[in-house]
Amino acid sequence: MGLEIRSEPLTAPAFAPYGDVLEAEGSHDKLINAGLCARFHDRARMDFGAHGRAGISLFKAVPRALPYVCDLLERHPEGSQAFVPMSTAPWLIIVAPDAGGVPGQPRAFRPGPGQAVNFLRGTWHGVLTPLADPGLFAVIDRIGETPNLEEHFLQEPFTVLS
Amino acid sequence: MGLEIRSEPLTAPAFAPYGDVLEAEGSHDKLINAGLCARFHDRARMDFGAHGRAGISLFKAVPRALPYVCDLLERHPEGSQAFVPMSTAPWLIIVAPDAGGVPGQPRAFRPGPGQAVNFLRGTWHGVLTPLADPGLFAVIDRIGETPNLEEHFLQEPFTVLS
Repeated sequence: MGLEIRSEPLTAPAFAPYGDVLEAEGSHDKLINAGLCARFHDRARMDFGAHGRAGISLFKAVPRALPYVCDLLERHPEGSQAFVPMSTAPWLIIVAPDAGGVPGQPRAFRPGPGQAVNFLRGTWHGVLTPLADPGLFAVIDRIGETPNLEEHFLQEPFTVLS
Repeated sequence: MGLEIRSEPLTAPAFAPYGDVLEAEGSHDKLINAGLCARFHDRARMDFGAHGRAGISLFKAVPRALPYVCDLLERHPEGSQAFVPMSTAPWLIIVAPDAGGVPGQPRAFRPGPGQAVNFLRGTWHGVLTPLADPGLFAVIDRIGETPNLEEHFLQEPFTVLS
């Protein structure tokens, strides 16, 4: 039987090695629109390399169920990637540190409603994993001409139990 | 009594003069993740000028009610601005063409669940207007040092009836 892990709540400190948690929590940076809107300003460490630019794409993914067997991690060597849910439905985030060019020990996070993430350039992560409909996300990542996807198929898949 | 308008459904053709409708409709550009995810690729005409860059901010706004009285339109001379709802709650979009440096005849659009928009650089628009909680949006716009906000207070406010 392979590795089994449990997801952790998504918090900025816990997720810091992998990227940014985008959420309207803590103090805002400014109040705009006559005080009716709080702006949490420029919260993602985006990076598109020398020859890339930012793009917004929409991802519509099939919901998965728990326990979830993960047999693939990927990373984008040329750019950061933000996953912004367009609903409050549950989803799962899987990341791993790099261990000599392959993924190390995986971790899973469970975002709450209103939380998005931005993976730092080169961060190993699982594919977009909604846990319920509609599975719809805005993805802000690098648009460019050169390859930007490295996939690592795991010889021993692991399971996210909860 | 001032101008009264009614909102229209948000469609890409109707909104084209003002910007992009970001939605997972029509044909996707590629299937990824072993066929489990459809990517609608690079759907926003982003533009951050010569000295700006893309940033992701979160906006948390107080919900408004209809009829909605609008007395302010604004535009960003240095960059495009995308509003991506992080829920499926209803919201309102107000835009206007430029008429010699001031807003012309306003129009209102009602996005459905799963629709986001990207205002083209310099497009007159109303402030972020959720019609229900949570009023939470990811905003992808220009980060830069120079001013990027022009506000126009309307001598004669207009009302969005529905």
